Amino acid sequence: MARPEPWRLALESYPFSEASQTRFQDLDPMGHINNVAMAGLFENGRVRFNRTLITHKRDDQRWLIAAVAINYLEECYFPADVTIASGIGDVGNRSWTILSAAFQGGHCVATCDTTLVLTGPASSRTITDEFRAALHAHGVKRG
Amino acid sequence: MARPEPWRLALESYPFSEASQTRFQDLDPMGHINNVAMAGLFENGRVRFNRTLITHKRDDQRWLIAAVAINYLEECYFPADVTIASGIGDVGNRSWTILSAAFQGGHCVATCDTTLVLTGPASSRTITDEFRAALHAHGVKRG
Amino acid sequence: MARPEPWRLALESYPFSEASQTRFQDLDPMGHINNVAMAGLFENGRVRFNRTLITHKRDDQRWLIAAVAINYLEECYFPADVTIASGIGDVGNRSWTILSAAFQGGHCVATCDTTLVLTGPASSRTITDEFRAALHAHGVKRG
Amino acid sequence: MARPEPWRLALESYPFSEASQTRFQDLDPMGHINNVAMAGLFENGRVRFNRTLITHKRDDQRWLIAAVAINYLEECYFPADVTIASGIGDVGNRSWTILSAAFQGGHCVATCDTTLVLTGPASSRTITDEFRAALHAHGVKRG
Repeated sequence: MARPEPWRLALESYPFSEASQTRFQDLDPMGHINNVAMAGLFENGRVRFNRTLITHKRDDQRWLIAAVAINYLEECYFPADVTIASGIGDVGNRSWTILSAAFQGGHCVATCDTTLVLTGPASSRTITDEFRAALHAHGVKRG
Repeated sequence: MARPEPWRLALESYPFSEASQTRFQDLDPMGHINNVAMAGLFENGRVRFNRTLITHKRDDQRWLIAAVAINYLEECYFPADVTIASGIGDVGNRSWTILSAAFQGGHCVATCDTTLVLTGPASSRTITDEFRAALHAHGVKRG
Repeated sequence: MARPEPWRLALESYPFSEASQTRFQDLDPMGHINNVAMAGLFENGRVRFNRTLITHKRDDQRWLIAAVAINYLEECYFPADVTIASGIGDVGNRSWTILSAAFQGGHCVATCDTTLVLTGPASSRTITDEFRAALHAHGVKRG
Repeated sequence: MARPEPWRLALESYPFSEASQTRFQDLDPMGHINNVAMAGLFENGRVRFNRTLITHKRDDQRWLIAAVAINYLEECYFPADVTIASGIGDVGNRSWTILSAAFQGGHCVATCDTTLVLTGPASSRTITDEFRAALHAHGVKRG
Protein backbone atom coordinates (compact mmCIF):
# COMPACT_ATOMS: atom_id res chain seq x y z
CA MET A 1 0.00 0.00 0.00
CA ALA A 2 1.49 3.30 -1.09
CA ARG A 3 2.01 6.20 1.33
CA PRO A 4 -1.00 8.54 1.22
CA GLU A 5 -0.67 11.68 -0.89
CA PRO A 6 -0.06 14.92 1.05
CA TRP A 7 -3.61 16.26 0.58
CA ARG A 8 -4.93 13.16 2.36
CA LEU A 9 -3.16 14.30 5.54
CA ALA A 10 -4.76 17.77 5.64
CA LEU A 11 -7.96 18.30 7.61
CA GLU A 12 -9.16 20.96 5.17
CA SER A 13 -9.35 18.42 2.34
CA TYR A 14 -12.45 16.89 3.92
CA PRO A 15 -15.92 18.51 3.94
CA PHE A 16 -16.95 16.90 7.24
CA SER A 17 -15.14 16.35 10.52
CA GLU A 18 -16.08 15.63 14.10
CA ALA A 19 -14.11 15.02 17.30
CA SER A 20 -14.43 11.47 18.61
CA GLN A 21 -13.61 10.52 22.16
CA THR A 22 -11.19 7.69 22.66
CA ARG A 23 -12.07 5.02 25.21
CA PHE A 24 -10.07 2.85 27.58
CA GLN A 25 -11.44 -0.12 25.60
CA ASP A 26 -9.50 1.14 22.55
CA LEU A 27 -6.16 0.35 24.21
CA ASP A 28 -4.33 -2.91 23.67
CA PRO A 29 -1.39 -4.49 25.52
CA MET A 30 1.03 -2.16 23.69
CA GLY A 31 -0.63 0.77 25.47
CA HIS A 32 -1.75 2.52 22.31
CA ILE A 33 -5.04 2.69 20.42
CA ASN A 34 -5.38 -0.73 18.80
CA ASN A 35 -5.57 -0.94 15.01
CA VAL A 36 -9.02 -2.60 15.12
CA ALA A 37 -10.23 0.05 17.56
CA MET A 38 -9.11 2.66 15.01
CA ALA A 39 -11.23 0.84 12.41
CA GLY A 40 -14.15 1.27 14.84
CA LEU A 41 -13.44 5.00 15.19
CA PHE A 42 -13.40 5.34 11.40
CA GLU A 43 -16.69 3.44 11.16
CA ASN A 44 -18.24 5.76 13.71
CA GLY A 45 -16.99 8.82 11.82
CA ARG A 46 -18.39 7.39 8.60
CA VAL A 47 -21.80 6.75 10.11
CA ARG A 48 -21.96 10.32 11.40
CA PHE A 49 -20.82 11.66 8.00
CA ASN A 50 -23.43 9.47 6.27
CA ARG A 51 -26.38 10.93 8.14
CA THR A 52 -27.24 13.35 5.33
CA LEU A 53 -26.42 10.98 2.47
CA ILE A 54 -28.42 8.10 3.94
CA THR A 55 -31.65 9.96 3.15
CA HIS A 56 -30.98 8.91 -0.45
CA LYS A 57 -31.09 5.20 0.38
CA ARG A 58 -34.07 3.45 -1.17
CA ASP A 59 -35.94 0.93 0.95
CA ASP A 60 -35.13 -1.90 -1.44
CA GLN A 61 -31.42 -1.12 -1.35
CA ARG A 62 -28.71 -2.15 1.03
CA TRP A 63 -25.45 -0.26 1.22
CA LEU A 64 -22.78 -2.81 1.94
CA ILE A 65 -19.15 -2.24 2.81
CA ALA A 66 -17.11 -3.90 0.06
CA ALA A 67 -13.62 -2.86 1.19
CA VAL A 68 -11.81 -0.94 3.91
CA ALA A 69 -8.14 0.00 3.60
CA ILE A 70 -6.44 1.76 6.51
CA ASN A 71 -2.94 3.25 6.65
CA TYR A 72 -1.60 3.60 10.19
CA LEU A 73 0.82 6.54 10.09
CA GLU A 74 1.49 7.36 13.74
CA GLU A 75 0.61 5.80 17.07
CA CYS A 76 -2.48 7.16 18.70
CA TYR A 77 -3.26 7.40 22.41
CA PHE A 78 -5.95 7.55 25.08
CA PRO A 79 -7.54 9.71 26.49
CA ALA A 80 -7.09 12.52 23.91
CA ASP A 81 -9.81 12.91 21.29
CA VAL A 82 -9.37 11.85 17.68
CA THR A 83 -10.91 13.95 14.92
CA ILE A 84 -12.35 11.86 12.10
CA ALA A 85 -12.71 13.73 8.79
CA SER A 86 -14.52 12.29 5.78
CA GLY A 87 -15.57 13.06 2.24
CA ILE A 88 -16.62 11.25 -0.91
CA GLY A 89 -13.86 10.04 -3.26
CA ASP A 90 -14.67 8.21 -6.48
CA VAL A 91 -18.21 7.48 -7.65
CA GLY A 92 -18.86 4.58 -10.05
CA ASN A 93 -22.06 3.09 -11.42
CA ARG A 94 -22.84 0.98 -8.40
CA SER A 95 -20.19 1.83 -5.83
CA TRP A 96 -18.46 4.82 -4.27
CA THR A 97 -15.67 5.50 -1.83
CA ILE A 98 -15.57 7.44 1.40
CA LEU A 99 -12.12 8.83 2.10
CA SER A 100 -11.39 9.53 5.76
CA ALA A 101 -8.49 10.63 7.93
CA ALA A 102 -7.91 10.59 11.68
CA PHE A 103 -6.11 13.40 13.50
CA GLN A 104 -4.73 13.54 17.03
CA GLY A 105 -2.67 16.36 18.46
CA GLY A 106 -2.71 18.14 15.12
CA HIS A 107 -1.20 15.21 13.17
CA CYS A 108 -2.84 12.84 10.75
CA VAL A 109 -2.42 9.46 12.46
CA ALA A 110 -4.27 7.27 9.95
CA THR A 111 -6.22 7.32 6.68
CA CYS A 112 -9.10 5.09 5.67
CA ASP A 113 -10.59 4.32 2.23
CA THR A 114 -14.00 2.67 2.38
CA THR A 115 -15.77 1.26 -0.66
CA LEU A 116 -19.56 0.96 -0.48
CA VAL A 117 -21.66 -0.92 -2.98
CA LEU A 118 -25.41 -0.98 -3.70
CA THR A 119 -27.09 -4.35 -3.39
CA GLY A 120 -30.72 -5.36 -3.79
CA PRO A 121 -32.92 -6.08 -6.82
CA ALA A 122 -31.28 -5.32 -10.17
CA SER A 123 -33.29 -2.12 -10.58
CA SER A 124 -31.87 -0.67 -7.39
CA ARG A 125 -28.19 -1.31 -8.06
CA THR A 126 -27.45 1.81 -10.07
CA ILE A 127 -26.48 5.16 -8.58
CA THR A 128 -29.12 7.63 -9.77
CA ASP A 129 -28.23 11.09 -11.06
CA GLU A 130 -29.76 12.63 -7.97
CA PHE A 131 -27.72 10.48 -5.60
CA ARG A 132 -24.60 11.06 -7.69
CA ALA A 133 -25.07 14.81 -7.34
CA ALA A 134 -25.45 14.44 -3.58
CA LEU A 135 -22.28 12.37 -3.36
CA HIS A 136 -20.32 14.90 -5.41
CA ALA A 137 -21.62 17.71 -3.19
CA HIS A 138 -19.81 15.99 -0.29
CA GLY A 139 -16.60 15.30 -2.21
CA VAL A 140 -13.08 15.68 -0.86
CA LYS A 141 -10.91 18.51 -2.14
CA ARG A 142 -7.95 16.78 -3.78
CA GLY A 143 -4.72 18.76 -3.69
CA MET B 1 -9.47 -1.90 -4.60
CA ALA B 2 -9.31 -4.68 -7.14
CA ARG B 3 -11.14 -7.98 -6.69
CA PRO B 4 -8.80 -10.56 -5.12
CA GLU B 5 -7.13 -13.06 -7.45
CA PRO B 6 -8.63 -16.59 -7.45
CA TRP B 7 -5.77 -18.17 -5.44
CA ARG B 8 -6.54 -15.73 -2.61
CA LEU B 9 -9.94 -17.38 -2.17
CA ALA B 10 -8.61 -20.93 -1.75
CA LEU B 11 -7.86 -22.27 1.72
CA GLU B 12 -4.98 -24.39 0.44
CA SER B 13 -3.04 -21.26 -0.59
CA TYR B 14 -2.29 -20.52 3.05
CA PRO B 15 0.17 -22.46 5.23
CA PHE B 16 -1.76 -21.78 8.47
CA SER B 17 -5.44 -21.84 9.36
CA GLU B 18 -7.54 -22.09 12.46
CA ALA B 19 -11.26 -22.08 13.17
CA SER B 20 -12.41 -18.98 15.09
CA GLN B 21 -15.67 -18.83 16.94
CA THR B 22 -17.94 -15.96 16.14
CA ARG B 23 -19.55 -14.07 19.03
CA PHE B 24 -22.87 -12.33 19.56
CA GLN B 25 -20.81 -9.13 20.03
CA ASP B 26 -19.71 -9.41 16.38
CA LEU B 27 -23.24 -8.69 15.16
CA ASP B 28 -24.41 -5.22 14.24
CA PRO B 29 -27.92 -3.81 13.62
CA MET B 30 -27.91 -5.36 10.12
CA GLY B 31 -27.81 -8.79 11.77
CA HIS B 32 -24.53 -9.87 10.17
CA ILE B 33 -20.93 -9.93 11.37
CA ASN B 34 -19.89 -6.29 11.43
CA ASN B 35 -16.99 -5.20 9.23
CA VAL B 36 -14.96 -3.98 12.23
CA ALA B 37 -15.65 -7.27 14.04
CA MET B 38 -14.26 -9.06 10.98
CA ALA B 39 -11.11 -6.91 11.34
CA GLY B 40 -10.90 -8.23 14.92
CA LEU B 41 -11.25 -11.82 13.73
CA PHE B 42 -8.44 -11.25 11.22
CA GLU B 43 -6.27 -9.71 13.96
CA ASN B 44 -6.88 -12.72 16.16
CA GLY B 45 -5.97 -15.09 13.33
CA ARG B 46 -2.80 -13.09 12.65
CA VAL B 47 -1.74 -13.21 16.29
CA ARG B 48 -2.20 -16.98 16.37
CA PHE B 49 -0.30 -17.33 13.07
CA ASN B 50 2.48 -15.10 14.43
CA ARG B 51 3.21 -17.29 17.43
CA THR B 52 6.13 -19.03 15.74
CA LEU B 53 7.43 -15.98 13.89
CA ILE B 54 7.35 -13.75 16.97
CA THR B 55 10.29 -15.71 18.43
CA HIS B 56 12.40 -13.77 15.90
CA LYS B 57 11.44 -10.40 17.38
CA ARG B 58 14.42 -8.67 19.03
CA ASP B 59 13.81 -6.95 22.35
CA ASP B 60 14.72 -3.56 20.92
CA GLN B 61 12.28 -3.93 18.05
CA ARG B 62 8.60 -3.20 17.77
CA TRP B 63 6.50 -4.72 15.05
CA LEU B 64 3.91 -2.13 14.15
CA ILE B 65 0.91 -2.49 11.87
CA ALA B 66 1.40 -0.04 9.02
CA ALA B 67 -1.63 -0.92 6.92
CA VAL B 68 -4.64 -3.22 6.84
CA ALA B 69 -6.76 -3.67 3.70
CA ILE B 70 -9.85 -5.86 3.86
CA ASN B 71 -12.11 -6.97 1.02
CA TYR B 72 -15.58 -7.99 2.16
CA LEU B 73 -16.79 -10.54 -0.39
CA GLU B 74 -19.84 -12.12 1.24
CA GLU B 75 -21.90 -11.53 4.33
CA CYS B 76 -20.88 -13.55 7.34
CA TYR B 77 -23.09 -14.75 10.20
CA PHE B 78 -23.25 -15.82 13.84
CA PRO B 79 -23.00 -18.45 15.38
CA ALA B 80 -21.08 -20.49 12.75
CA ASP B 81 -17.29 -20.52 13.01
CA VAL B 82 -15.04 -18.57 10.67
CA THR B 83 -11.76 -20.13 9.56
CA ILE B 84 -8.95 -17.60 9.33
CA ALA B 85 -6.07 -18.65 7.07
CA SER B 86 -2.79 -16.73 6.85
CA GLY B 87 0.60 -16.76 5.19
CA ILE B 88 3.44 -14.37 4.42
CA GLY B 89 3.20 -12.35 1.21
CA ASP B 90 5.93 -9.89 0.21
CA VAL B 91 9.06 -9.30 2.27
CA GLY B 92 10.94 -6.02 1.91
CA ASN B 93 13.94 -4.58 3.78
CA ARG B 94 12.00 -3.36 6.75
CA SER B 95 8.42 -4.49 6.23
CA TRP B 96 6.46 -7.56 5.21
CA THR B 97 2.86 -8.49 4.52
CA ILE B 98 0.62 -11.12 6.03
CA LEU B 99 -2.06 -12.27 3.58
CA SER B 100 -5.17 -13.73 5.19
CA ALA B 101 -8.56 -14.99 4.15
CA ALA B 102 -11.73 -15.78 6.11
CA PHE B 103 -13.97 -18.73 5.24
CA GLN B 104 -17.48 -19.55 6.41
CA GLY B 105 -19.60 -22.42 5.13
CA GLY B 106 -16.89 -23.32 2.62
CA HIS B 107 -16.80 -19.87 0.98
CA CYS B 108 -14.18 -17.17 1.24
CA VAL B 109 -16.09 -14.27 2.81
CA ALA B 110 -13.22 -11.76 3.10
CA THR B 111 -9.52 -11.26 2.46
CA CYS B 112 -7.08 -9.16 4.49
CA ASP B 113 -3.65 -7.78 3.62
CA THR B 114 -1.66 -6.57 6.61
CA THR B 115 1.62 -4.69 6.36
CA LEU B 116 3.96 -4.84 9.34
CA VAL B 117 7.02 -2.66 9.78
CA LEU B 118 10.01 -2.84 12.09
CA THR B 119 10.54 0.16 14.34
CA GLY B 120 13.14 0.81 17.01
CA PRO B 121 16.77 2.01 16.91
CA ALA B 122 18.24 2.24 13.38
CA SER B 123 20.26 -0.95 13.85
CA SER B 124 17.10 -2.97 14.45
CA ARG B 125 15.10 -1.78 11.47
CA THR B 126 16.39 -4.24 8.91
CA ILE B 127 14.99 -7.72 8.34
CA THR B 128 17.90 -10.11 8.95
CA ASP B 129 18.64 -13.06 6.66
CA GLU B 130 17.53 -15.46 9.37
CA PHE B 131 14.19 -13.70 9.86
CA ARG B 132 13.73 -13.45 6.09
CA ALA B 133 14.18 -17.19 5.78
CA ALA B 134 11.62 -17.78 8.53
CA LEU B 135 9.13 -15.49 6.80
CA HIS B 136 9.60 -17.22 3.45
CA ALA B 137 9.13 -20.59 5.15
CA HIS B 138 5.60 -19.44 6.04
CA GLY B 139 4.83 -17.98 2.61
CA VAL B 140 1.52 -18.25 0.80
CA LYS B 141 1.33 -20.46 -2.31
CA ARG B 142 0.37 -18.07 -5.11
CA GLY B 143 -1.63 -19.69 -7.87
CA MET C 1 -21.22 -8.23 46.58
CA ALA C 2 -20.71 -11.38 48.62
CA ARG C 3 -18.22 -14.06 47.61
CA PRO C 4 -19.99 -16.73 45.50
CA GLU C 5 -21.07 -19.92 47.27
CA PRO C 6 -18.88 -23.01 46.62
CA TRP C 7 -21.40 -24.69 44.30
CA ARG C 8 -21.20 -21.65 41.99
CA LEU C 9 -17.54 -22.46 41.33
CA ALA C 10 -18.14 -26.06 40.20
CA LEU C 11 -18.65 -26.82 36.51
CA GLU C 12 -21.02 -29.70 37.31
CA SER C 13 -23.54 -27.31 38.89
CA TYR C 14 -24.49 -26.03 35.44
CA PRO C 15 -26.54 -27.95 32.86
CA PHE C 16 -24.86 -26.31 29.87
CA SER C 17 -21.26 -25.44 29.08
CA GLU C 18 -19.23 -24.66 26.02
CA ALA C 19 -15.58 -23.74 25.41
CA SER C 20 -15.14 -20.17 24.16
CA GLN C 21 -12.01 -18.99 22.43
CA THR C 22 -10.36 -15.90 23.82
CA ARG C 23 -9.25 -13.22 21.38
CA PHE C 24 -6.36 -10.78 21.27
CA GLN C 25 -9.04 -8.03 21.37
CA ASP C 26 -9.98 -9.23 24.88
CA LEU C 27 -6.65 -8.05 26.31
CA ASP C 28 -6.19 -4.68 27.91
CA PRO C 29 -3.04 -2.73 28.86
CA MET C 30 -2.66 -4.88 32.00
CA GLY C 31 -2.09 -7.88 29.71
CA HIS C 32 -5.05 -9.87 30.99
CA ILE C 33 -8.58 -10.44 29.73
CA ASN C 34 -10.34 -7.15 30.35
CA ASN C 35 -13.37 -7.13 32.66
CA VAL C 36 -15.65 -5.81 29.91
CA ALA C 37 -14.34 -8.46 27.53
CA MET C 38 -15.29 -11.05 30.15
CA ALA C 39 -18.81 -9.57 30.14
CA GLY C 40 -18.82 -10.17 26.37
CA LEU C 41 -17.72 -13.79 26.85
CA PHE C 42 -20.54 -14.30 29.35
CA GLU C 43 -23.03 -12.75 26.93
CA ASN C 44 -21.85 -15.08 24.20
CA GLY C 45 -22.19 -18.09 26.49
CA ARG C 46 -25.70 -16.93 27.48
CA VAL C 47 -26.80 -16.57 23.87
CA ARG C 48 -25.57 -20.08 23.07
CA PHE C 49 -27.28 -21.43 26.19
CA ASN C 50 -30.47 -19.61 25.23
CA ARG C 51 -30.80 -21.26 21.86
CA THR C 52 -33.27 -23.86 23.11
CA LEU C 53 -35.13 -21.54 25.49
CA ILE C 54 -35.59 -18.80 22.92
CA THR C 55 -38.08 -21.01 21.03
CA HIS C 56 -40.48 -20.07 23.85
CA LYS C 57 -40.27 -16.37 23.07
CA ARG C 58 -43.55 -15.00 21.73
CA ASP C 59 -43.38 -12.58 18.82
CA ASP C 60 -44.95 -9.79 20.85
CA GLN C 61 -42.43 -10.20 23.67
CA ARG C 62 -38.99 -8.77 24.14
CA TRP C 63 -36.57 -10.34 26.57
CA LEU C 64 -34.54 -7.50 28.01
CA ILE C 65 -31.50 -7.68 30.23
CA ALA C 66 -32.42 -5.97 33.49
CA ALA C 67 -29.23 -6.61 35.45
CA VAL C 68 -25.80 -8.22 35.14
CA ALA C 69 -23.59 -8.82 38.17
CA ILE C 70 -20.11 -10.28 37.65
CA ASN C 71 -17.61 -11.41 40.27
CA TYR C 72 -14.03 -11.47 39.03
CA LEU C 73 -12.26 -14.16 41.06
CA GLU C 74 -9.01 -14.74 39.23
CA GLU C 75 -7.19 -13.15 36.34
CA CYS C 76 -7.82 -14.71 32.97
CA TYR C 77 -5.45 -14.85 29.98
CA PHE C 78 -5.14 -15.14 26.21
CA PRO C 79 -4.89 -17.43 24.20
CA ALA C 80 -6.29 -20.26 26.34
CA ASP C 81 -9.99 -21.03 25.98
CA VAL C 82 -12.57 -20.09 28.62
CA THR C 83 -15.43 -22.46 29.33
CA ILE C 84 -18.71 -20.65 29.98
CA ALA C 85 -21.26 -22.69 31.93
CA SER C 86 -24.87 -21.57 32.45
CA GLY C 87 -28.15 -22.60 34.02
CA ILE C 88 -31.38 -21.04 35.16
CA GLY C 89 -31.50 -19.68 38.72
CA ASP C 90 -34.65 -18.06 40.12
CA VAL C 91 -37.88 -17.73 38.16
CA GLY C 92 -40.40 -15.03 39.09
CA ASN C 93 -43.66 -13.90 37.48
CA ARG C 94 -42.06 -11.74 34.85
CA SER C 95 -38.32 -12.22 35.22
CA TRP C 96 -35.74 -14.96 35.65
CA THR C 97 -32.02 -15.25 36.22
CA ILE C 98 -29.32 -17.04 34.28
CA LEU C 99 -26.43 -18.06 36.51
CA SER C 100 -23.11 -18.52 34.73
CA ALA C 101 -19.50 -19.23 35.57
CA ALA C 102 -16.28 -18.98 33.56
CA PHE C 103 -13.48 -21.51 33.88
CA GLN C 104 -9.90 -21.37 32.65
CA GLY C 105 -7.22 -23.92 33.40
CA GLY C 106 -9.63 -25.81 35.63
CA HIS C 107 -10.40 -22.84 37.89
CA CYS C 108 -13.51 -20.74 38.13
CA VAL C 109 -12.28 -17.28 37.17
CA ALA C 110 -15.58 -15.40 37.30
CA THR C 111 -19.30 -15.79 37.96
CA CYS C 112 -22.16 -13.88 36.32
CA ASP C 113 -25.78 -13.42 37.38
CA THR C 114 -28.03 -12.09 34.64
CA THR C 115 -31.62 -11.00 35.19
CA LEU C 116 -33.93 -11.06 32.19
CA VAL C 117 -37.37 -9.48 32.11
CA LEU C 118 -40.32 -9.83 29.75
CA THR C 119 -41.52 -6.62 28.11
CA GLY C 120 -44.24 -6.01 25.57
CA PRO C 121 -48.03 -5.64 25.83
CA ALA C 122 -49.45 -6.40 29.29
CA SER C 123 -50.75 -9.78 28.17
CA SER C 124 -47.27 -10.96 27.25
CA ARG C 125 -45.49 -9.98 30.45
CA THR C 126 -46.20 -13.10 32.45
CA ILE C 127 -44.13 -16.26 32.37
CA THR C 128 -46.50 -19.04 31.25
CA ASP C 129 -46.56 -22.44 32.91
CA GLU C 130 -45.07 -23.99 29.82
CA PHE C 131 -42.17 -21.54 29.73
CA ARG C 132 -41.68 -21.91 33.49
CA ALA C 133 -41.35 -25.68 33.06
CA ALA C 134 -38.77 -25.19 30.31
CA LEU C 135 -36.77 -22.80 32.50
CA HIS C 136 -36.82 -25.21 35.44
CA ALA C 137 -35.71 -28.03 33.13
CA HIS C 138 -32.52 -26.04 32.55
CA GLY C 139 -31.97 -25.13 36.20
CA VAL C 140 -28.64 -25.08 38.02
CA LYS C 141 -27.94 -27.76 40.64
CA ARG C 142 -27.44 -25.83 43.86
CA GLY C 143 -25.09 -27.52 46.31
CA MET D 1 -30.78 -7.38 42.39
CA ALA D 2 -32.90 -4.75 44.09
CA ARG D 3 -34.06 -1.66 42.24
CA PRO D 4 -31.63 1.25 42.87
CA GLU D 5 -32.57 3.78 45.55
CA PRO D 6 -33.87 7.14 44.25
CA TRP D 7 -30.65 9.06 45.05
CA ARG D 8 -28.77 6.69 42.73
CA LEU D 9 -30.78 8.04 39.79
CA ALA D 10 -29.93 11.71 40.38
CA LEU D 11 -26.96 13.25 38.62
CA GLU D 12 -26.29 15.57 41.55
CA SER D 13 -25.52 12.63 43.84
CA TYR D 14 -22.21 12.11 42.05
CA PRO D 15 -19.15 14.36 42.43
CA PHE D 16 -17.86 13.66 38.90
CA SER D 17 -19.57 13.41 35.54
CA GLU D 18 -18.60 13.59 31.91
CA ALA D 19 -20.46 13.24 28.62
CA SER D 20 -19.44 10.15 26.64
CA GLN D 21 -20.13 9.78 22.96
CA THR D 22 -21.91 6.65 21.88
CA ARG D 23 -20.58 4.75 18.88
CA PHE D 24 -22.14 2.73 16.09
CA GLN D 25 -20.14 -0.23 17.48
CA ASP D 26 -22.24 0.00 20.67
CA LEU D 27 -25.36 -1.12 18.84
CA ASP D 28 -26.49 -4.73 18.70
CA PRO D 29 -29.08 -6.48 16.52
CA MET D 30 -31.89 -5.11 18.72
CA GLY D 31 -30.89 -1.61 17.57
CA HIS D 32 -30.09 -0.32 21.04
CA ILE D 33 -26.88 0.16 23.00
CA ASN D 34 -25.81 -3.37 23.90
CA ASN D 35 -25.49 -4.26 27.58
CA VAL D 36 -21.81 -5.13 27.22
CA ALA D 37 -21.21 -1.87 25.38
CA MET D 38 -22.77 -0.08 28.34
CA ALA D 39 -20.27 -1.89 30.60
CA GLY D 40 -17.55 -0.41 28.37
CA LEU D 41 -19.03 3.07 28.73
CA PHE D 42 -19.06 2.67 32.51
CA GLU D 43 -15.44 1.47 32.45
CA ASN D 44 -14.46 4.49 30.41
CA GLY D 45 -16.24 6.83 32.84
CA ARG D 46 -14.51 5.11 35.78
CA VAL D 47 -11.08 5.49 34.21
CA ARG D 48 -11.70 9.18 33.65
CA PHE D 49 -13.01 9.59 37.20
CA ASN D 50 -9.97 7.70 38.53
CA ARG D 51 -7.44 10.06 37.04
CA THR D 52 -7.01 12.02 40.27
CA LEU D 53 -7.29 9.02 42.59
CA ILE D 54 -4.77 6.95 40.63
CA THR D 55 -1.97 9.24 41.83
CA HIS D 56 -2.35 7.41 45.16
CA LYS D 57 -1.51 4.04 43.61
CA ARG D 58 1.81 2.66 44.88
CA ASP D 59 4.11 1.03 42.33
CA ASP D 60 3.94 -2.31 44.12
CA GLN D 61 0.14 -2.29 44.11
CA ARG D 62 -2.34 -3.39 41.51
CA TRP D 63 -5.92 -2.22 41.64
CA LEU D 64 -8.02 -5.07 40.37
CA ILE D 65 -11.71 -5.11 39.57
CA ALA D 66 -13.34 -7.64 41.90
CA ALA D 67 -16.98 -7.13 40.94
CA VAL D 68 -19.18 -5.14 38.58
CA ALA D 69 -22.97 -5.03 39.00
CA ILE D 70 -25.05 -3.14 36.45
CA ASN D 71 -28.77 -2.40 36.53
CA TYR D 72 -30.23 -1.66 33.11
CA LEU D 73 -33.19 0.65 33.74
CA GLU D 74 -34.08 1.99 30.31
CA GLU D 75 -32.99 1.33 26.77
CA CYS D 76 -30.26 3.58 25.49
CA TYR D 77 -29.62 4.68 21.90
CA PHE D 78 -27.07 5.89 19.36
CA PRO D 79 -25.98 8.60 18.44
CA ALA D 80 -26.95 10.69 21.50
CA ASP D 81 -24.31 11.11 24.21
CA VAL D 82 -24.45 9.29 27.52
CA THR D 83 -23.33 11.10 30.67
CA ILE D 84 -21.42 8.84 33.06
CA ALA D 85 -21.39 10.07 36.66
CA SER D 86 -19.26 8.48 39.39
CA GLY D 87 -18.35 8.76 43.04
CA ILE D 88 -16.87 6.61 45.79
CA GLY D 89 -19.28 4.45 47.80
CA ASP D 90 -18.03 2.22 50.62
CA VAL D 91 -14.40 2.03 51.70
CA GLY D 92 -13.12 -1.07 53.50
CA ASN D 93 -9.65 -2.13 54.61
CA ARG D 94 -8.55 -3.42 51.27
CA SER D 95 -11.35 -2.65 48.85
CA TRP D 96 -13.67 0.17 47.86
CA THR D 97 -16.61 0.72 45.54
CA ILE D 98 -17.16 3.19 42.75
CA LEU D 99 -20.85 3.97 42.26
CA SER D 100 -21.78 5.18 38.79
CA ALA D 101 -24.87 6.06 36.84
CA ALA D 102 -25.50 6.64 33.13
CA PHE D 103 -27.88 9.30 31.86
CA GLN D 104 -29.34 9.85 28.40
CA GLY D 105 -31.95 12.42 27.50
CA GLY D 106 -32.19 13.47 31.14
CA HIS D 107 -33.06 9.99 32.43
CA CYS D 108 -30.93 7.58 34.38
CA VAL D 109 -30.67 4.57 32.03
CA ALA D 110 -28.34 2.37 34.12
CA THR D 111 -26.40 2.19 37.38
CA CYS D 112 -23.09 0.44 37.99
CA ASP D 113 -21.41 -0.65 41.24
CA THR D 114 -17.75 -1.53 40.84
CA THR D 115 -15.66 -3.09 43.60
CA LEU D 116 -11.91 -2.57 43.43
CA VAL D 117 -9.40 -4.45 45.55
CA LEU D 118 -5.72 -3.87 46.31
CA THR D 119 -3.38 -6.69 45.38
CA GLY D 120 0.40 -6.97 45.66
CA PRO D 121 2.76 -7.81 48.55
CA ALA D 122 1.05 -8.06 51.94
CA SER D 123 2.37 -4.67 53.02
CA SER D 124 0.61 -2.96 50.15
CA ARG D 125 -2.83 -4.45 50.61
CA THR D 126 -4.18 -2.00 53.15
CA ILE D 127 -5.83 1.30 52.31
CA THR D 128 -3.73 3.98 53.99
CA ASP D 129 -5.27 6.88 55.91
CA GLU D 130 -4.16 9.27 53.21
CA PHE D 131 -5.75 7.24 50.44
CA ARG D 132 -8.88 6.76 52.54
CA ALA D 133 -9.20 10.51 52.93
CA ALA D 134 -8.83 10.98 49.18
CA LEU D 135 -11.51 8.37 48.51
CA HIS D 136 -13.91 10.00 50.97
CA ALA D 137 -13.26 13.39 49.36
CA HIS D 138 -14.75 11.95 46.15
CA GLY D 139 -17.69 10.26 47.84
CA VAL D 140 -21.24 10.13 46.53
CA LYS D 141 -23.92 12.17 48.28
CA ARG D 142 -26.43 9.60 49.51
CA GLY D 143 -29.94 10.88 49.71
